[in-house]
Amino acid sequence: MDKYEKILDLCKRRGLFSQSAEIYGGVAGFIDYGPIGSRLKDNLVRLWKKLFIDSHPDLIYEVETPIITPEPIFKASGHVDHFTDPITQCLACKRVFRADHVLEEKGIKAESLTDEELAVYYTKGVECPVCGGKLDTPKRFNLLFKTTIGPYTSSIGYVRAETAQGMFTLFKRAYEVLREKRVFGLAQVGRVGRNEISPRQGPIRLREFTQMELEFFFDPQDTDQVKPFLNDVASESLRLMFANGEKIEEIALKEAITRNIIASPWLGYFMILGKKFLLELGIDLNSQYFLEVPKWKLPHYSKQTWDLMVNVDKWGWIEVAGYSYRGDYDLRAHSEMSRVDLRVFKPYQSPVRLKKLKLIWDADRLKEKFGKKTGSIISKLKTLSEAQMKAAIEKGYVEIENEKIPIGELKVIEEETEEYGEKIFLHVVEPSFGVDRLFYVMIDKAYTEKENRVVLKIPRKLAIPQVGVLPLVTKDGLDRVAREIFKTISKAGIIVTYDEEGAIGRRYARLDEIGVPLAITVDYQTLLDGSVTFRDRDSWRQVRVKKEEIISAIKSFVYDDAKLETLGEPFFIESDARINNG
Amino acid sequence: MDKYEKILDLCKRRGLFSQSAEIYGGVAGFIDYGPIGSRLKDNLVRLWKKLFIDSHPDLIYEVETPIITPEPIFKASGHVDHFTDPITQCLACKRVFRADHVLEEKGIKAESLTDEELAVYYTKGVECPVCGGKLDTPKRFNLLFKTTIGPYTSSIGYVRAETAQGMFTLFKRAYEVLREKRVFGLAQVGRVGRNEISPRQGPIRLREFTQMELEFFFDPQDTDQVKPFLNDVASESLRLMFANGEKIEEIALKEAITRNIIASPWLGYFMILGKKFLLELGIDLNSQYFLEVPKWKLPHYSKQTWDLMVNVDKWGWIEVAGYSYRGDYDLRAHSEMSRVDLRVFKPYQSPVRLKKLKLIWDADRLKEKFGKKTGSIISKLKTLSEAQMKAAIEKGYVEIENEKIPIGELKVIEEETEEYGEKIFLHVVEPSFGVDRLFYVMIDKAYTEKENRVVLKIPRKLAIPQVGVLPLVTKDGLDRVAREIFKTISKAGIIVTYDEEGAIGRRYARLDEIGVPLAITVDYQTLLDGSVTFRDRDSWRQVRVKKEEIISAIKSFVYDDAKLETLGEPFFIESDARINNG
Repeated sequence: MDKYEKILDLCKRRGLFSQSAEIYGGVAGFIDYGPIGSRLKDNLVRLWKKLFIDSHPDLIYEVETPIITPEPIFKASGHVDHFTDPITQCLACKRVFRADHVLEEKGIKAESLTDEELAVYYTKGVECPVCGGKLDTPKRFNLLFKTTIGPYTSSIGYVRAETAQGMFTLFKRAYEVLREKRVFGLAQVGRVGRNEISPRQGPIRLREFTQMELEFFFDPQDTDQVKPFLNDVASESLRLMFANGEKIEEIALKEAITRNIIASPWLGYFMILGKKFLLELGIDLNSQYFLEVPKWKLPHYSKQTWDLMVNVDKWGWIEVAGYSYRGDYDLRAHSEMSRVDLRVFKPYQSPVRLKKLKLIWDADRLKEKFGKKTGSIISKLKTLSEAQMKAAIEKGYVEIENEKIPIGELKVIEEETEEYGEKIFLHVVEPSFGVDRLFYVMIDKAYTEKENRVVLKIPRKLAIPQVGVLPLVTKDGLDRVAREIFKTISKAGIIVTYDEEGAIGRRYARLDEIGVPLAITVDYQTLLDGSVTFRDRDSWRQVRVKKEEIISAIKSFVYDDAKLETLGEPFFIESDARINNG
Repeated sequence: MDKYEKILDLCKRRGLFSQSAEIYGGVAGFIDYGPIGSRLKDNLVRLWKKLFIDSHPDLIYEVETPIITPEPIFKASGHVDHFTDPITQCLACKRVFRADHVLEEKGIKAESLTDEELAVYYTKGVECPVCGGKLDTPKRFNLLFKTTIGPYTSSIGYVRAETAQGMFTLFKRAYEVLREKRVFGLAQVGRVGRNEISPRQGPIRLREFTQMELEFFFDPQDTDQVKPFLNDVASESLRLMFANGEKIEEIALKEAITRNIIASPWLGYFMILGKKFLLELGIDLNSQYFLEVPKWKLPHYSKQTWDLMVNVDKWGWIEVAGYSYRGDYDLRAHSEMSRVDLRVFKPYQSPVRLKKLKLIWDADRLKEKFGKKTGSIISKLKTLSEAQMKAAIEKGYVEIENEKIPIGELKVIEEETEEYGEKIFLHVVEPSFGVDRLFYVMIDKAYTEKENRVVLKIPRKLAIPQVGVLPLVTKDGLDRVAREIFKTISKAGIIVTYDEEGAIGRRYARLDEIGVPLAITVDYQTLLDGSVTFRDRDSWRQVRVKKEEIISAIKSFVYDDAKLETLGEPFFIESDARINNG
């Protein structure tokens, strides 16, 4: 078994995650999070929320929008037209494949081929990888899960392919709720669906998964808002690989912004947060960098995209987040599709006096001349732009509906108006994280083996359960005392498990395997003075902690990463391995 | 505006919730949770998790399974066949209606009518409520949102209509992960979809909503497991209305169990938790009771169901949770559909010696007599039950495939075996809560008006934000000091907002309106000694709190419901109303 298979086996056996609908033979691309995994995943999500949302009070807000989404929204987003993969069907066995993947497996670099280029290969003839039959010319397959809303089949809905669109469609409401701020973020954590042809990479490529996305709205002209945030991370640097680069370069954030390497300071700020987030998940700096997506691969909405790449044992470098500068693409697209103005009002520093041309006409005179057409002509006159008026003055007439109206029939005056501001589209930067991949990566990084057993070194504050309570033996009342301590710890809001089955060493091993950072053992000394031993998952060392300090010592150890040795007197026992074998 | 309309308006204006896809004209049955609502909803969910999951370490576990579900699972559950509503289409205008609702609106009690009884009305002729045209004979419309998984249209998937099925299909894996416990619960909070025909009750009837469900598995023969849990709630009582009852009766839990009013002690235990949960949401005892669902209305899976009913201003009594004793329906149904044995092994106290009859035959002699049929006859002989053997001994022959085999041709022996246990299906009790309805009810209960403004008296520990920080005025550095206090509070992990816009009274009013329990005001005294005033949302009274006690005082007030007066010296100001108008 390679490490990936070992992790999959561990996750299945110990309730982290396993394939969905297992008793029905499973369905590719779907996983269930079990009793340990669900909570562990929740801790990962909460950490993200703490860093990206809670640390920005009055600036970034969480929202929650539906999964089933009416068609116009995914039309506006471009998904209905562009969210497709090329597929090909075998004319003999009727199996369906990703047309580019089939070629890749035959050693052809097909990832960047256009549909026409792909077709060329298939016209020449490509064999079915299963039955050897002829594969049909590729077609486009839309990856949106389609359904209908209500009893009318014409009312199409989709399972959202990203949480982002819900935030764009909620933008106007949020803007009003937030009293017309011109800088704010909406964040959402939720499930999305992508109907992949044949997902095969376990938790790395799923048909249903959880996204954590932030849509950050701002006025690109306003460079003051971002300053205090940049100051907070002034000393930080980013590991970047340019689209045309060959190695990772470490560049100070400040430099990256001043040199315009990163298209928006806000994007840079959130990239630093992403780096910190990964560090807290146990992904060290050497295992992460930002990869600039080359222009030709950029999604249609993006001005610049950086993929946050992480190195895992099985798959090499994989993307766990995308950082896009979406410009005003989304708000503009939804304005056009919905015909609701999503621009915001930006006041000038002080009102601006503007001189504007204005046309005046005598409706009666026009009527004499143009009869029934007059109404229509007047409504067109009303919509003439400043430039059109100037052109008319130059030419000496206005031409409307094939009628030339001499400028003398009209009156041009210059009016002075006071303008208080203008309407602008806010721009968007979007950090978008895939939770399930990150979850896998966190396990991959935490996975270690020691003396032939697994020790899952998940960061203490993320681990589940946080503590295990074990009676050394189940006689002389040790188990009763241990159960009482277990209850006390649980009531203090700590996630705790109790285990009395089997030799103490085997029980330590079971806790180590799912990454429980702390094992508390109740022994004969406990009966005398209430003290217990604390055992550190990572060092296997133990200390003895006084009865009245148990709860505070757990909290220091789990939440504040206190060193075990600071929590009590060293406690010497025979080595774990000996006991384990005993 | 009635209270419901006022609440809807408030929720929309202040970012609690609003109709989804608003800029596209909205879609019935879908809502967005805004910047305040999303977090408030999360607090409601967390409270449920604390009571139902976290308070039961090593017993109840959270899991997370996909929303998109392959067809066999909803076949086994009965949803593909039974999860339907009767619909009727107008032959003239083509509009579609719920066939029973149309009759209800005409004053006919149609809720309990069978399809045949409904059809009788429609054959006689029912008018379209919109155009007056003739309505067609009702058909059954399935409420599952249907889609396809992968590129084959035959691979049908559904948006789950309940989270429960994910827990039943994960049962076997969880049972193994939990080392074959015969009592445990799996809980899940997640989105579900129900394709209602024409949902019209706002957040009360949605097409997509969040469920919080617990599937609790147990051996009904084992009455010891539940005892410590019942002891914890021994003094509690339940407000019950029987299926054939006319008034709510308050009955002690113990009595309800001993009198078999409640079909399982576990069901009773979780009913008490439900009652407590509602109390913590601010729904008092008089606004809640459990309604027994009459036998004829019971869902196909249920032995007994109690609906947890709550009284709201607009709709009267509505159901916010269903408590069902599902027996072994689900595990049995999935065993049959998946052909995976979902029974668990239950050891006997001590091994049991059993005498069993066994048939022995001489294959050669049978072959002489039955020729080609012999193989088939022998395979049938192998499957004979103990009872069939006894019957054969009595009759003197075994009859297989119209052949009578005299018992003399066979040999019956008695064998003694040792049995260590038996395989049983665990039973299930299920408390199932609808989050969005509860969310609305929580707002409805919290909604009050005082001096012509709204004060949303959400329980302090659930409110969002938890604190508002306001400088009395924005000059003389008060705003700078206030911003520093705001940051300090935020860093302590408290959800806080800052507001300096407008008169102080208006700012208090804005906080009251979304239920912020505590307003902290920075005034000129703050510049001298760092002290601030704390203002209680509900009483509008104020006290002055010392600088170094601000954080601990906030925590006491918000988390421990401390009385405002215990946190500092009374602080007298002109009445709120005066300032508000100033």
